[in-house]
Amino acid sequence: MRQSRLLPTTLRESPGDAEIVSHRYLLRAGFIRQLAAGIYTYMPLGRRVLRKLEQTVREEMDRAGAQELLLPAMQPAELWKESGRYEVYGPELIRLVDRHGREFALGPTHEEVVTALVRNEISSYRKLPVTLYQIQTKFRDERRPRYGLLRGREFLMKDAYSFDSDPEGLDRSYRSMFDAYHRIFERCGLSFRAVEADAGAIGGQGETHEFIALADIGEDTIAACTHCDYAANLERTEAGAPSAAAGGKEGEAASAPLEKLHTPGIRTIEQLVRSLRIRAADTIKTVIFIADGQAVAVAVRGDDEINEIKVKRYLGTENIAIADPETVERVTGAPAGYAGPIGLTVPVLVDRSVVQMTDAVAGSNEADYHYIHVCPERDIDLRHAGDFRNATEGDNCPRCSEGKLAFYRGIELGHVFKLGTKYSERMGATFLDQAGQTRAAVMGCYGIGISRMMSAVIEQNHDENGMIWPLAVAPFQVHLIPVSVHDEQQMRLANDCYERLRDHGIELLLDDRAERPGVKFKDADLIGIPFRIVVGKEAANGHVEFMERKGMKKSRFRQTRRSRALSGRAGPLGSRNG
Amino acid sequence: MRQSRLLPTTLRESPGDAEIVSHRYLLRAGFIRQLAAGIYTYMPLGRRVLRKLEQTVREEMDRAGAQELLLPAMQPAELWKESGRYEVYGPELIRLVDRHGREFALGPTHEEVVTALVRNEISSYRKLPVTLYQIQTKFRDERRPRYGLLRGREFLMKDAYSFDSDPEGLDRSYRSMFDAYHRIFERCGLSFRAVEADAGAIGGQGETHEFIALADIGEDTIAACTHCDYAANLERTEAGAPSAAAGGKEGEAASAPLEKLHTPGIRTIEQLVRSLRIRAADTIKTVIFIADGQAVAVAVRGDDEINEIKVKRYLGTENIAIADPETVERVTGAPAGYAGPIGLTVPVLVDRSVVQMTDAVAGSNEADYHYIHVCPERDIDLRHAGDFRNATEGDNCPRCSEGKLAFYRGIELGHVFKLGTKYSERMGATFLDQAGQTRAAVMGCYGIGISRMMSAVIEQNHDENGMIWPLAVAPFQVHLIPVSVHDEQQMRLANDCYERLRDHGIELLLDDRAERPGVKFKDADLIGIPFRIVVGKEAANGHVEFMERKGMKKSRFRQTRRSRALSGRAGPLGSRNG
Repeated sequence: MRQSRLLPTTLRESPGDAEIVSHRYLLRAGFIRQLAAGIYTYMPLGRRVLRKLEQTVREEMDRAGAQELLLPAMQPAELWKESGRYEVYGPELIRLVDRHGREFALGPTHEEVVTALVRNEISSYRKLPVTLYQIQTKFRDERRPRYGLLRGREFLMKDAYSFDSDPEGLDRSYRSMFDAYHRIFERCGLSFRAVEADAGAIGGQGETHEFIALADIGEDTIAACTHCDYAANLERTEAGAPSAAAGGKEGEAASAPLEKLHTPGIRTIEQLVRSLRIRAADTIKTVIFIADGQAVAVAVRGDDEINEIKVKRYLGTENIAIADPETVERVTGAPAGYAGPIGLTVPVLVDRSVVQMTDAVAGSNEADYHYIHVCPERDIDLRHAGDFRNATEGDNCPRCSEGKLAFYRGIELGHVFKLGTKYSERMGATFLDQAGQTRAAVMGCYGIGISRMMSAVIEQNHDENGMIWPLAVAPFQVHLIPVSVHDEQQMRLANDCYERLRDHGIELLLDDRAERPGVKFKDADLIGIPFRIVVGKEAANGHVEFMERKGMKKSRFRQTRRSRALSGRAGPLGSRNG
Repeated sequence: MRQSRLLPTTLRESPGDAEIVSHRYLLRAGFIRQLAAGIYTYMPLGRRVLRKLEQTVREEMDRAGAQELLLPAMQPAELWKESGRYEVYGPELIRLVDRHGREFALGPTHEEVVTALVRNEISSYRKLPVTLYQIQTKFRDERRPRYGLLRGREFLMKDAYSFDSDPEGLDRSYRSMFDAYHRIFERCGLSFRAVEADAGAIGGQGETHEFIALADIGEDTIAACTHCDYAANLERTEAGAPSAAAGGKEGEAASAPLEKLHTPGIRTIEQLVRSLRIRAADTIKTVIFIADGQAVAVAVRGDDEINEIKVKRYLGTENIAIADPETVERVTGAPAGYAGPIGLTVPVLVDRSVVQMTDAVAGSNEADYHYIHVCPERDIDLRHAGDFRNATEGDNCPRCSEGKLAFYRGIELGHVFKLGTKYSERMGATFLDQAGQTRAAVMGCYGIGISRMMSAVIEQNHDENGMIWPLAVAPFQVHLIPVSVHDEQQMRLANDCYERLRDHGIELLLDDRAERPGVKFKDADLIGIPFRIVVGKEAANGHVEFMERKGMKKSRFRQTRRSRALSGRAGPLGSRNG
């Protein structure tokens, strides 16, 4: 392709609202353009990358034995009502009404549609297992779209759904997708980790993993053991015993009886720490929540964070919210800031690390007073003790006895879920087993954010001058740059290169623009095509310069050797990930 | 792929609402399933065909120098208001509101979005011409979806848009797409004709062609000359001079003065013909319309049909409707059924074939009376004479003097339009020309209904037993059928065939089901894979049967010869369209 014809030109400045490097570079290099918040056009260069990602995903899905289909984006609302998600899904589900007044949803995911399909098509165990997948534009009305392709409202997904006759079959289907995901992300040159995760709104109580690309700007935090291969999404990480370094005087015997201290105007852990000259780890933080309309208290150590996902899971509800000040006053009898775990009439969920404390400070449920010398085992109702906090960096690994947890930030690339029979039971996707008994199909679902992968690849593959595309997903393989298009020898050699390499199946972008060399090289750095051939002054001698974008390593070739090196199997373009 | 794993099984009966053969076969063979009216799932076999069609379109678009991008499906309503189409497009445009209350449309077409893109990206003639295309799911809320994939509400389209600096450039871009369309439809094994068409709601007054696949069930009627290459959509066909056979006593001198005849209760042409023993061609039919709120009368010969498109074009409006009886009475002074072209105060559009009549019968605008001996040249105000009727079969060709018009039915596969500057002017897509003057880009737009092509291919390629896929778009190239999966020799030979041919890049469906041979062959006929290899009793001798689905031609091969014949360039699979 000739660059003079390529639709967008590069931008010198990146738009002000692009906060992360992938978003900035994609905009500046003309890979994408925004149409509305969270809604992007893929320009020709971006479309090429997207198609390579699609193709990689498709090949590995096919290899794993999944069958490609294409489900509609417009989904009758009835199906969502059958599954019970029409209300639950909330405002992220885009709804519309057709000309006859029938309600539809624009698919953010397709569990309902695919379950309805399979219940019509499969009635016997003999047709199981089956895994179906599609590559399709999805719609989700994010409250706050941001980070370019990372959190959009219209995006490209691969979603797959497996149907098995029993849980063992699901284990195999799940493993097959799990392995395919590893191959996909490796082929795309991504550094990633599969982490245990929480099922969230899609539901299912079973196993689930997120595939996370490690990146500082990632919206997800993961905890991984320094010793074993345990890794989990932070919201999901089991909080083991706090490490010795963390506080609370745990292990010591209770030193003194419970005592009320006058603490006028002190309402936060921070004020308490400053005023009493103690550590946050010596305090207990108590927060009142409303769960399904009922008040509950959650108590964690002052230096810990409450993990709402864990609270939800313990209570078995999706609906919890921090109580407003009026409710807090009604529940505790004191204004906000003095809630404590002792003497409440509502259930108190007490984190395990609180249980281990022996001499703590806590709110007293009375204005301007705190308890000191709190010994939870002695003073707090521990019927609802459990894991209710976020793990913290340095915690002991919950899996092995050797390692500690280290934190990383990352971008979610994909997600695999064991759904079990949640949808098949509600929607009647049943089959007759070998014994002639009716059973619900055992389902799994498996997603990959294909457009999001584009951003993740850049976050992991760039330098200060621009993007550095791995060969497998690069928009072109070779950027061919004659330094001066007015130089006949250069253009002859460049055109010759272009045709020869193209005839070998290599994808080239020929910079035939009448621009200064500096402009051309700067653009080439930004666009980040993995290999570059510069045709310059030495064209007269048949010499060109060959360069890898990664590390900007240069070498010089004569025309004859060059074409062999580029097209031969052993050449640099023969390898998969550059 | 193994057929035992293929998701849907074939159906013996086709669902009752499938009126046409392509819809019936696609459902019965399990290529598609309906989710809601006009909304279909493409099952694995259908998805494969769709991808081949996509790929054929993509290759020819790329060859024509068009650049692929991907525009969003969710389009801000503001853009449609800018172009003026938000109201005009009517209920076919699916509208929705996001969580912040902003209005969006689901794209049925992308003139607005692409024009808004180009106005931001192109400011100089140096970046022109450019042609952009995408392959994307489109949404249109058809009032009456039907015929399966032919008239759906969610469908796959290729849409392309060209931008040129002048009309001559547009001519070249248009021609390039026109030629690409020919290559695409030829590669897909379609018999089609490019016909002159009407621009309709997309607008633009310039040249436009529809590519029509000839098929008896087609919703479009085209007229083509028996002598020259003139062909046009019926609604657009110029009505030339009526052929001599058609009536109205034209050419004779006026025989008698205008006279009123008492015709009590006679309100239709049919009644007039019966009662006066004349031909419909001897009468004048006058219909009152309301165009933009104003009444007009249109007069055609009694055996002709009024062409509303031509009336709209003459009046320069999109809004016309037949007047209700009260309006007719007010305008003509008589109840409906007695309207005539003589003495009205509203404008009378008189068809050219009426002008040629010399002794006609017409309504008199008075209840229970008709005029006879009407001589339009003498009696009717001919200021608004023109072409206002549908051409009829047998009319003289409006282009050449030799041929007559013959009618065909057909399915619209694609459409090419010269839009001119309609969108670029309204939306400000301008550029600086060589002289530094600001000018509006000259646009063309070009659509292909990809999912609809699937139906058209079947309408043209089937027999009473099922579909007959042309090789280029077949879901698989070879259907490999061991007659008995319990016969070890057969299965060994079949698996051997499968692996060898697959390793040569041939796509095979292996019928490994434990079904009776009759069931397998019946399914194979229905699915219509172009080539079939049957491994039966002669497997012991290494013989298999090779068959073409088209014409069911059989031949016998020994294994060694067979693999050569199938994989070699000269073999039956080497050709493009089978």
